[in-house]
Amino acid sequence: MKAGIITIGDEILIGQIVDTNSAWISEKMTEAGFEIEEKQAIGDNAEQIKNTITDTFNRVDVILMTGGLGPTKDDITKKTLCEYFDTELIYNNDVLKNIETLFAGRTVNDLTRNQAYVPENCTVIQNRVGTAPITWFDYKGKVLVSMPGVPYEMKYVMENEIIPRLHKKFDIEAYLKKVFIVGGYTESALAMHIADFENNLPKGFGLAYLPSIGLMKLRLFIKGEQYRPEFDKQIKKLENILGNAILAERDIPLEQILGERLFEKGLTLSTAESCTGGNIAHLITSIAGSSNYFKGSVVSYSNEAKINLLHVSQKTLDLFGAVSEEVVQEMASGACRVLNTDCSIAVSGIAGPDGGSVDKPVGTVWICTRYKNKSVAKKYQGSNLRETNIIRASNLAMLQLLEIIEEV
Amino acid sequence: MKAGIITIGDEILIGQIVDTNSAWISEKMTEAGFEIEEKQAIGDNAEQIKNTITDTFNRVDVILMTGGLGPTKDDITKKTLCEYFDTELIYNNDVLKNIETLFAGRTVNDLTRNQAYVPENCTVIQNRVGTAPITWFDYKGKVLVSMPGVPYEMKYVMENEIIPRLHKKFDIEAYLKKVFIVGGYTESALAMHIADFENNLPKGFGLAYLPSIGLMKLRLFIKGEQYRPEFDKQIKKLENILGNAILAERDIPLEQILGERLFEKGLTLSTAESCTGGNIAHLITSIAGSSNYFKGSVVSYSNEAKINLLHVSQKTLDLFGAVSEEVVQEMASGACRVLNTDCSIAVSGIAGPDGGSVDKPVGTVWICTRYKNKSVAKKYQGSNLRETNIIRASNLAMLQLLEIIEEV
Repeated sequence: MKAGIITIGDEILIGQIVDTNSAWISEKMTEAGFEIEEKQAIGDNAEQIKNTITDTFNRVDVILMTGGLGPTKDDITKKTLCEYFDTELIYNNDVLKNIETLFAGRTVNDLTRNQAYVPENCTVIQNRVGTAPITWFDYKGKVLVSMPGVPYEMKYVMENEIIPRLHKKFDIEAYLKKVFIVGGYTESALAMHIADFENNLPKGFGLAYLPSIGLMKLRLFIKGEQYRPEFDKQIKKLENILGNAILAERDIPLEQILGERLFEKGLTLSTAESCTGGNIAHLITSIAGSSNYFKGSVVSYSNEAKINLLHVSQKTLDLFGAVSEEVVQEMASGACRVLNTDCSIAVSGIAGPDGGSVDKPVGTVWICTRYKNKSVAKKYQGSNLRETNIIRASNLAMLQLLEIIEEV
Repeated sequence: MKAGIITIGDEILIGQIVDTNSAWISEKMTEAGFEIEEKQAIGDNAEQIKNTITDTFNRVDVILMTGGLGPTKDDITKKTLCEYFDTELIYNNDVLKNIETLFAGRTVNDLTRNQAYVPENCTVIQNRVGTAPITWFDYKGKVLVSMPGVPYEMKYVMENEIIPRLHKKFDIEAYLKKVFIVGGYTESALAMHIADFENNLPKGFGLAYLPSIGLMKLRLFIKGEQYRPEFDKQIKKLENILGNAILAERDIPLEQILGERLFEKGLTLSTAESCTGGNIAHLITSIAGSSNYFKGSVVSYSNEAKINLLHVSQKTLDLFGAVSEEVVQEMASGACRVLNTDCSIAVSGIAGPDGGSVDKPVGTVWICTRYKNKSVAKKYQGSNLRETNIIRASNLAMLQLLEIIEEV
């Protein structure tokens, strides 16, 4: 069963927003056993929408469409679907009732009220978390679903309505898929290390590499439940080859890998962040349940904060400067002490694009990770790209802590 | 001049990574005067790549292609382009030299060395920040460019090589575009407020709405420099209608709007974050130059941290609980005091998905913003989605601070 995703909206085409929806939809649909054939983003343009639907229906069984359902003039999806499927907009009282429930007594203005107009010739699915209804068209044995582009509305609707209904309609063969998160290899080094394994994979098996900072994701896959025994055999083989380099066997972010290790070991964590500006704390607390191991962070962007909150000594700052081994060591021990934790991560660097010197160019980062009385401080050199430096330092810091707690 | 973007890679289709490249490319190309007709994401599949190129060339003048250029087996773009353009891979010594420069003495392994094979019948553009070369094909008056998918490599190459070369090749009419960031309106309320303006826009003008949490982005646009006087007139009209609701007249994030206001007024900021877990500090420090106004944050994820670092009283915590008006008030004044700042933001809430109660359901957030001796605390109700709650609380907190500092 093949599916295609069509994202509608000029904002996407001019790059005003990043399309995160289609990645999420792809992942869920792939898990559900569909093969995503293609994704397309097009403008709020009736002719282009209709042509794209026609083209896409030539290649796929299911079209999932998002966007263009807002109450304003530039949103034309509903009207265009009426033209495509040769039907008309009619007023649907259930949609209005749903909107009134969502508004909980607040006045529903006319533009919002117009959301209750839906194509006559389709199945209307109520949107329990937003005002735009979902429309499902059955067409020559195929399906087109039009959903709102607001991410949490789309996600709610996909999980609770669309995927269950697609499962009911189609008989789907699932993909077997396994992800390995591997530390310590570059893409080419890993490819060379597992070349024999890869060359000897049985027919139909696929292996994909996804590089990330300090990490590699490997994805092994094959379609069809009948390959399960061989699939399990290949997984075992890869586990033997990679050994301890495997940080996780699920596609989870580094902050979750670290969080699970801390939780298993009953350890608590704090961070002391200068150039990462709270990003490590943010990543760690993005994981539900992180309050079980994370106690807090001091984002010491100024020297004053380093001295007052982390008890870094003025003398160390004067002698070595804020971006130095000595200062990150004091920041890490200060964090453990003031936040009363077993482990800590301390980062100080020059994120850029300005602020570098000959000795300490933009991108210089010192990271200290501490576990009880053991601490390791390392220097890394990034680029002059602020965003990349922050992300990179955050990842490297979490990897460095993982290493130190694994050793104990 | 129309352009299309083709993103190649199974990782995109199965949703393992979010495609941020194509939004960036779209924005830069639109600024450069091109119209992005469509974006497509397809798999590492030779037939699909060739068919998509043929289809896309029917509709656009320039194809920008990213991905599938890694050194590993699953990357087949280069080989496929040879088939499409009827040419062969040849060894290019300049590419090898570039790789050796990048490796700065480290050994170049065979897989990486193979990156120096490039199609014979194309212009090779050196990649100064990565190992995969860029290939530019001139074809029946049109252009196809194949670039690596690694974001910072692609960005470097687009800005320094591709856009200047496209400008040289094509004579392009630029888009006039203006973005307004508007506070205090929902999409439909804003649409109703400016309905007259929108209905009376001269022919050819477009107006698009992009809703975001607590904010709306409005984009006014028209193609052709000759419309500049009318464009400026329409901008003035919109400015008069929206007045103080306009937070910015450029497409910049809220954290930058807030940062610029603080900097203009010579004010310093600290944050005290519980449920937002450092995300506000992260957003604020993502802006270059934020050290001019941001002094630091205490991420007080535990009560202990609230007491020890922010001097919230044990009694207040016992009486009202961590998620309460009283506690955020003490967090905000504590942050101003210990980080010695003019302003502060304090947030405490239940991000979820668990941890709620009847009185304080998941999604409850208290936000206190403080400017000198004035402080405002408000309660907001989110959903049970952790990520959304964190983003929403961060945005609302920054908006709440903007309001309080504007009033003074």
